[in-house]
Amino acid sequence: MKENPSGCSVEESMRILGGRWRLPLVSCLLDGPKRFNDLRRDVPGISQRMLTLDLRALEDAGLIRRTVYPGSPVKVEYALSEDGERLRPVVEVVKTFGLWLKARDGKL
Amino acid sequence: MKENPSGCSVEESMRILGGRWRLPLVSCLLDGPKRFNDLRRDVPGISQRMLTLDLRALEDAGLIRRTVYPGSPVKVEYALSEDGERLRPVVEVVKTFGLWLKARDGKL
Repeated sequence: MKENPSGCSVEESMRILGGRWRLPLVSCLLDGPKRFNDLRRDVPGISQRMLTLDLRALEDAGLIRRTVYPGSPVKVEYALSEDGERLRPVVEVVKTFGLWLKARDGKL
Repeated sequence: MKENPSGCSVEESMRILGGRWRLPLVSCLLDGPKRFNDLRRDVPGISQRMLTLDLRALEDAGLIRRTVYPGSPVKVEYALSEDGERLRPVVEVVKTFGLWLKARDGKL
């Protein structure tokens, strides 16, 4: 196998961030903590099942924190962890590319 | 539906760049044009089928060019288009995050 450390680092990121919805979710959480239904509203294309799975994967990767506030009903909140905050420049550059793409394709 | 132009731009990017292998492929092509088997070697985790599909998707999005050189055997080369070159800063920042992730997780 050829040594390809830089390629591998891109793969390492995409193993966690790949998929259509994870970076959009992180993008929403950059604005502050959100509840499950806030995220469903802010990322309207995602299914409930996919949202559950993606939040769990990001939590398992240590990029978001899930906090349960006891009460009735229980309140569950999702927030970026300190590690997750490192995704801010990633989201920014992906957002810039997306804006350019939309302009190119006449979607703005 | 809530207006969320920045979130939507991230989604727009990930519609094309999402998935585990597309950015790693773009990363390889930033070094210059490659043939199919070069890419298989440089991105060893990808299956032949997935490579075919991802190259086609990136070509359809106008981000890579496929050039066929007649001869025997025919030579087919993949290269980033001018639009695809706009992914350089995206790859850089994703690579930086991946390197950090590998260091955090003791994979370096």
